[in-house]
Amino acid sequence: MLDKLDLTKTTDETKYEAALEEYKDRLGVLQRTLREKKIPTMIVIEGWNASGITMAVHEIVHALDPRGYTLYKTDKPTEEERVHPFLWRFWLRIPPRGRITIFARSWYTRVIAEESHKPSWEKSLKGRARQINTFERQLADDGTVIMKFFLHITKAEQKSRLEGREGNPLTACLVTPSIWNLHHHYDDALPVFDDFIQKTDTPYAPWTLVEATDRKYAILKVYATIIKTLEKRCEAAEDGKTRKQKPLEMAKPKKSPVKRHSHPDKVLTKEELQETLSQLQVEMLELHYLLFKRRIPLIIVYEGWDAAGKGGNITRVTRFMNPLGYYVVPVAAPTEHEKELHYLRRFIQYFPIGGDIAIFDRSWYGRVLVERVEKICPEPDWQRAYQEINEMEEEFVYSSRGGIVKFWLEISKEEQLKRFNERASDPKKVYKITEEDWRNREKWDQYNEAVDEMLARTSTEIAPWTVVESDDKWFARVKALRTIIAAAHRLL
Amino acid sequence: MLDKLDLTKTTDETKYEAALEEYKDRLGVLQRTLREKKIPTMIVIEGWNASGITMAVHEIVHALDPRGYTLYKTDKPTEEERVHPFLWRFWLRIPPRGRITIFARSWYTRVIAEESHKPSWEKSLKGRARQINTFERQLADDGTVIMKFFLHITKAEQKSRLEGREGNPLTACLVTPSIWNLHHHYDDALPVFDDFIQKTDTPYAPWTLVEATDRKYAILKVYATIIKTLEKRCEAAEDGKTRKQKPLEMAKPKKSPVKRHSHPDKVLTKEELQETLSQLQVEMLELHYLLFKRRIPLIIVYEGWDAAGKGGNITRVTRFMNPLGYYVVPVAAPTEHEKELHYLRRFIQYFPIGGDIAIFDRSWYGRVLVERVEKICPEPDWQRAYQEINEMEEEFVYSSRGGIVKFWLEISKEEQLKRFNERASDPKKVYKITEEDWRNREKWDQYNEAVDEMLARTSTEIAPWTVVESDDKWFARVKALRTIIAAAHRLL
Repeated sequence: MLDKLDLTKTTDETKYEAALEEYKDRLGVLQRTLREKKIPTMIVIEGWNASGITMAVHEIVHALDPRGYTLYKTDKPTEEERVHPFLWRFWLRIPPRGRITIFARSWYTRVIAEESHKPSWEKSLKGRARQINTFERQLADDGTVIMKFFLHITKAEQKSRLEGREGNPLTACLVTPSIWNLHHHYDDALPVFDDFIQKTDTPYAPWTLVEATDRKYAILKVYATIIKTLEKRCEAAEDGKTRKQKPLEMAKPKKSPVKRHSHPDKVLTKEELQETLSQLQVEMLELHYLLFKRRIPLIIVYEGWDAAGKGGNITRVTRFMNPLGYYVVPVAAPTEHEKELHYLRRFIQYFPIGGDIAIFDRSWYGRVLVERVEKICPEPDWQRAYQEINEMEEEFVYSSRGGIVKFWLEISKEEQLKRFNERASDPKKVYKITEEDWRNREKWDQYNEAVDEMLARTSTEIAPWTVVESDDKWFARVKALRTIIAAAHRLL
Repeated sequence: MLDKLDLTKTTDETKYEAALEEYKDRLGVLQRTLREKKIPTMIVIEGWNASGITMAVHEIVHALDPRGYTLYKTDKPTEEERVHPFLWRFWLRIPPRGRITIFARSWYTRVIAEESHKPSWEKSLKGRARQINTFERQLADDGTVIMKFFLHITKAEQKSRLEGREGNPLTACLVTPSIWNLHHHYDDALPVFDDFIQKTDTPYAPWTLVEATDRKYAILKVYATIIKTLEKRCEAAEDGKTRKQKPLEMAKPKKSPVKRHSHPDKVLTKEELQETLSQLQVEMLELHYLLFKRRIPLIIVYEGWDAAGKGGNITRVTRFMNPLGYYVVPVAAPTEHEKELHYLRRFIQYFPIGGDIAIFDRSWYGRVLVERVEKICPEPDWQRAYQEINEMEEEFVYSSRGGIVKFWLEISKEEQLKRFNERASDPKKVYKITEEDWRNREKWDQYNEAVDEMLARTSTEIAPWTVVESDDKWFARVKALRTIIAAAHRLL
C-alpha cells in the first residue's frame, strides 16, 4: 500500500493558509459538539522518523481547547509499564467521553520496536495485530471514534531531513545513532510496516496513509480526514445513532453450563474443616513464595449473592499470604470519572504484575449481573460484554502468563434470609446490611437468570468458574482455597 | 533514642491472643468511624531489615475492611518517579478523607537509601528532614492523622533472623548480598537513623519506637498506639475539633506589594507588537530546545480576570513551542475524588519533569481567589494557603532546579464589560460567556482585595508575580512571552 502513494503531491502556500484557517475553526466547533454529545475520540499519528509527526500534532492541538484534549507522546515503556501486558498502558490512556486523546506514536511504534527484531517476528506481529484489533474494536463498540495516520516519506527524503537536523546545533542532538541505524534499515522496515498496517486496517479503526513529502499537503490531508470523520459521526449522533450496534458473533461457552448448588454434598464438621483450612493456609503461603519467585501473576474473582460470605472467605484465604504480594480490590459503583471510560478500564488498571495476587471482591461481571438486572446498562452493551470479558481474560492469561480463578459463592434464598436477619439484629453487624440488600433480594429470580447466563457464557478453558457451595461458610473457605492452590500448582 | 529501648520486652501467648482479638474489633469499629467523619489516616511502618515490617502490616490489614485502606510497599522509585522531586510520588499517594493509607517503608527508607552514601550526607539529610516535616505538617493541617513506627532490633538479632531466612529454601532468595551489606553497616546506620528520627519527630507526626525482638510485643505496641491515637482523634471530632487550627507563622512577602495596571504605559501599534511577537516566538523555540536539552522544567501560571485573555495569550506564547515538550493544564473545579484530597495534590500531580514546560490555565491560587471569595473554603484554610503555596513553589524550585513564572492578567472593569458584551453578541464566541462570569463580575471588589493580598503574600524571590497589562491583548502577549524568555535565560 505504501509504495502506491504519490509522494510528489504538494499544496501551495495560499491555498494552505486559507484551508488551515477554515479547518481550525471547524475543528474548534467540532470539539464542542463532541463534548456535548459525549463522544470519545482517539487520534493516532504514526510514521517514519522525521516524517513530521510532531509538526502534525502541533497543528492539530493548536486548534483545540486544552480543556478537551490530552496529548500522549509514546516512548519506551517505564519499568511499571514494562512488567504489565503490552496494551495495559494504552488502556490507561483511552479518551473519556467527550474528550480527544492524541497519540504521537502509539502501540504501533512500540510493536515494531519490540517485536520486529525477534527471530519469530512474523508470528509475534500477527499476534499483536490480533490484540490491537480487539482493543480498537472494543473501544469503537463503546462509541470511540478512532483515526490512525501514517506519515510516509521516501528513504532519500528521510536522509535529507536527518542531515538537515544534524546541521542545526539546536536539533543535532535529537539525531541519535539509533535513528541513523533505523534509517539504514528503511528498506527492510517498509514491507513490515505495510503488512502491519494492512492487518490492522479495520472498518472501526481505519488507517489513512499520508503523503508527507510536502509539509503543507500532509497537514491538510490529516486535518481534512479528521474533520470529515468527526462531522460524519456528529451527524450520526444527531440521528440517535451514537453507537455502532452490529450483530455480534457470540463466543461459545467452552464447557457445558456450570451447575449450581448451595449446599456441599459431603458433610464435615466445623472442626474438621478448620483443621483442613489451617493446613491449606500453610500450603498457600509456600505457593505464594513460589509464584512470587517465578513472577507469575494470579487473579482471583469473587462474585456471589449478598451475604454469601465473600469478605470472610477472602480474609481466610489470604490469612497466610504475604501482604506485600497480594491486594484486594473492592469493587463498588463506578465513580463519575470512571463512568466516562470504557467499563473494562477500571479493572484492567488493577491487573496484577508477575508475582502479585489480585483479589477482586466483585468484578467486571457486574456488567452482566447488577448492571443488567437493574437496567443500568442497555441490553446490547451487556450482551456484548460476555465476548469482551472473555477476550480480556484471554488477553491477560496470554500476555502475562498468569492465571484466573473465578468463584461464584452460591447460597440458598433461605440461607440468605437467615443471614440478613442475623445481621439486622446484631449491633456489631448491622452496618453490613442495607436497604439495597433487601431490594436486590426481591429480584432474586432475575439475578438467578443472569448468573446462569454468565456461568454458561464466560466459563472458558483458561478462566473457568468454580461454584462454591456457601451455605456452610467453613466448607466454602476450604473449597475456595483448595481451588486456588490447584490453580497455582498448574501455573508453576 | 534507639539505644534507650529495652529490647528484652516480651508478651506471652495468652495475653497476646486475647489482646489481638480485642484490638481487631476496636480497629474495625474505628475504621467505620473514620469513614463517617471523613478523617484521612496515614500509617508509616519503618525499621531495620528483618525487623518484622511485613508481619506488622499483615496484622493491621487483616483487621481492616479492604474498601477503606490502601497499602503501599515503598520500593526503589520507577523511572517516572525518579525524574520527579523526591516527595512527588508520596504526594500522589496521600490518603483521601475517610481512608487509611499504610506505607510499608516510606520516604524515610528512601531518604536514607538515596542520601546517606553521599559525601555531604549530613547536609542532605537535614534538607530532607525539613522537606518531610513540611509535607507532614501540610497534611496534618488538612486533618490527616499521621502515625510513624520504627521497628528496632539489635545487630545480633538481625543476623540471626537473616540466617534463619537463608536456611529456608522459600525465603533464601530474599536475603540478597545488599541486605548483608546493610547488616555489616548496622553500627554506622544506627546514629543516622537516630538523628533522622529525632529531626522528624514532630507533634503533628510523632514517631513511635517499637521494641521488636519479640514479635507479639511489637505487634501489640503498634496496635495499641494506632487505636489510642485514632480513638482520641475520633473523640476530638465529636467535639467538632476535627482540624488542627494552630496560629500560623506567616511567610513574609519578600517584595513590596506588586502594583497593578490594566493599561500599558508605552503605546505601540498592533503591527509593531505582532512583529515583536513573531521574533520572540522564534527566540522561544530555540530556548525551548535548550531547556529540553538541559532537562530544566518550567512552570507558567496564568491567573487573571474573566475575559482577560488567558486562552489567547497561552496560544500565542506556545505558538512555536514543541508540543511534545509542553502541556497546558486547564484547571476547573475539583472533581469529587479530588475534593477528598489535600488541595495541592491535584496540581503537584501535573508538575513538569526536566525539559517540560507546564502551563497552568488557572492554578492553586484558586484557593485564595475563588474559594476565598465564594466562601467555598473556610477562612483558616485559605489563610494557611499562602504559606503552603510558597512552600510548595519553593520545594519545586529547590528540588527540580526549575523555574516558576506567574502572570496576573489585569484588565479594567470597563474593558471586561466591553469584552463580555462582545462575546454575548458574537455567535462564534457566545459559548465563552456564562451566567457565572456575570456573577463573578458583581463581586469585582471582593476579588480585587483577594488579588491584592495574593500578590503581596505570594510574590517571592524564587517565584515572583508579573502583572500583565491586558487591556491591549497584543501588548499582553508580548509582555508575557518576554517575561518567559527572561526567566528561561536565567535558568540556563
